[in-house]
Amino acid sequence: MGYQELTIEGRNAVIEAYRSGKPIDKIFILDGCQDGPIMTIKREAKKHDTLIKFVPKERLDQMSETGKHQGVIAYAAAYEYAEVEDILQAARDKNEPPFIFLLDNIEDPHNLGAIIRTANLAGAHGVIIPKNRAAGLTATVARTSAGALNYTPVAKVTNLAKTIEDLKKEGLWFVCADMGGTTMYQLNLKGAIGLVIGNEGEGVGRLVKEKCDMVASIPMKGDIDSLNASVAAGVLAYEIVRQRML
Amino acid sequence: MGYQELTIEGRNAVIEAYRSGKPIDKIFILDGCQDGPIMTIKREAKKHDTLIKFVPKERLDQMSETGKHQGVIAYAAAYEYAEVEDILQAARDKNEPPFIFLLDNIEDPHNLGAIIRTANLAGAHGVIIPKNRAAGLTATVARTSAGALNYTPVAKVTNLAKTIEDLKKEGLWFVCADMGGTTMYQLNLKGAIGLVIGNEGEGVGRLVKEKCDMVASIPMKGDIDSLNASVAAGVLAYEIVRQRML
Repeated sequence: MGYQELTIEGRNAVIEAYRSGKPIDKIFILDGCQDGPIMTIKREAKKHDTLIKFVPKERLDQMSETGKHQGVIAYAAAYEYAEVEDILQAARDKNEPPFIFLLDNIEDPHNLGAIIRTANLAGAHGVIIPKNRAAGLTATVARTSAGALNYTPVAKVTNLAKTIEDLKKEGLWFVCADMGGTTMYQLNLKGAIGLVIGNEGEGVGRLVKEKCDMVASIPMKGDIDSLNASVAAGVLAYEIVRQRML
Repeated sequence: MGYQELTIEGRNAVIEAYRSGKPIDKIFILDGCQDGPIMTIKREAKKHDTLIKFVPKERLDQMSETGKHQGVIAYAAAYEYAEVEDILQAARDKNEPPFIFLLDNIEDPHNLGAIIRTANLAGAHGVIIPKNRAAGLTATVARTSAGALNYTPVAKVTNLAKTIEDLKKEGLWFVCADMGGTTMYQLNLKGAIGLVIGNEGEGVGRLVKEKCDMVASIPMKGDIDSLNASVAAGVLAYEIVRQRML
C-alpha cells in the first residue's frame, strides 16, 4: 500500500524532503504558527508550488501517524511527473494519433487514480493535470490506479488553457465534457484528441472550456445531476475508443 | 453527511435496533466475546442475514465514534430495500423494456454508490444486489450515489442466479461483463436487459455467469488488467444507452 511511506511529519523531515528534491504535493501547517522553521517550510512550499493548507491542531493530531508532527505534515509523491513532450513522444512511438486526458482540477484522489487506470486501458498516451488545487500523485492515487501509474505518463502543468493552446499546434482537437453540449455519439471524436474532464463539483473551468473545440454531453436519463467524475471520464473515453475502432 | 447517524454502538443500542426492525448491513463484534448480550446479538444477526465480522479490540476502538462500543458496532441502512417486482413495475410505469443492473458482490461502498448513480442516469429501472458478502446500502453508499438512492430502487436477493432465472421468464436477456467475451460494440444489447457486474477482484461468479446469455468485453488497450468496477459498469451501461437510442 505504501501510503504511510509518503507522509512526512515534523519540521526537519519536511525541510529535508524539500532539500533532497522529493516532490511534495500538499502540506498541512498548524494555523497561526509563525516560527523560523515553519517560515522556511512555507517559503519552500511556495517555491515548489506545493498546495498549503492551514489547519487547527486537532486536525493535525488526527492525521498524524507518528504523533510527532510538530505542526507540519507533508504528502509527498512517489512518482516523478512526466513532461507533456513525453506524452506526445509515446504517441509517436506507437505511431498513433495522440489521445490525451486533461483533468481540470480533479480533487478526489480515488477519482484521479480511477481516471489514470481508465486512460491506460482506453489506450490514451498520457494524462495532464494542473499544478494547483487538484489532487497530485499520492499513494492513494497510485493504489487506485491499479498499477496504471507505472505505464501511463502523467504531466503536471501550470496553466491548462495554455497547454491546450500549445497542443493545438501539434494538431490535437479538444473535447470537454459538460452539460448542454452535443450528445457525444453525434460528435466526430476520431484523430488526435484531448479529452478534458472537469472538477467533481464545478465541472470544466470557463477559461479551459473556451479553448475546447467541442463540448460533449453524456445522455442523462435520470433524476440526478451528474455522473461520478471517473465514470464520466470512462464513458467519454470509450466513446472515443469506439469511434477509433470503426 | 449523515454517516454517523447510521453507526450504532453498544450492546443495548444494537439489540434495540434489531427489535425496532432497522435494517442492519454489517456488524463488528469483539473477537472471542461470548457473553449473553453478545450471543443475543449474534442470533439476531444470523436471523436477519447481517454480515458479521469478528475483529480485535484495537479495530473496534479505531472505528468507534463514541468510545463506548462495548464490543459491538453495527452499520445500519437508512434506506428500505425495494422488491424486484417494484423494479419491473417501474419499467412498466414508464412503458419501457426493463433495464436492470445486477451486482454480483460489489464490496466497495464507493463503487456501489457510484454504480447506483450511473444506473439512475443511464435510465435503468433498478439495481439488484445479493444479500451476502456484498456492500449494503450504508450512508457511504447513499453519499456516493449523489442522491440516486432516493430515485433508483435497490432490491436485495438471496440468490442472484435464481433471480436471473426468474427474470428470464419476464423476457429479460442477461449480459455480464467479463474478459474473453465478445466486444460489447458487436453485441445486440437492445430490449429488456439485465447488466451483470462482477466483484472487484474476482469478476462475475461462475454460477451467475452460466445464467447469462451474453458475455461482453470492454476493449482493453493498455498494460493493466481491468477497469475500476464502477467505471466498467458505466462504460457498459452507456453502450446499452447508445444502442437503445439508435
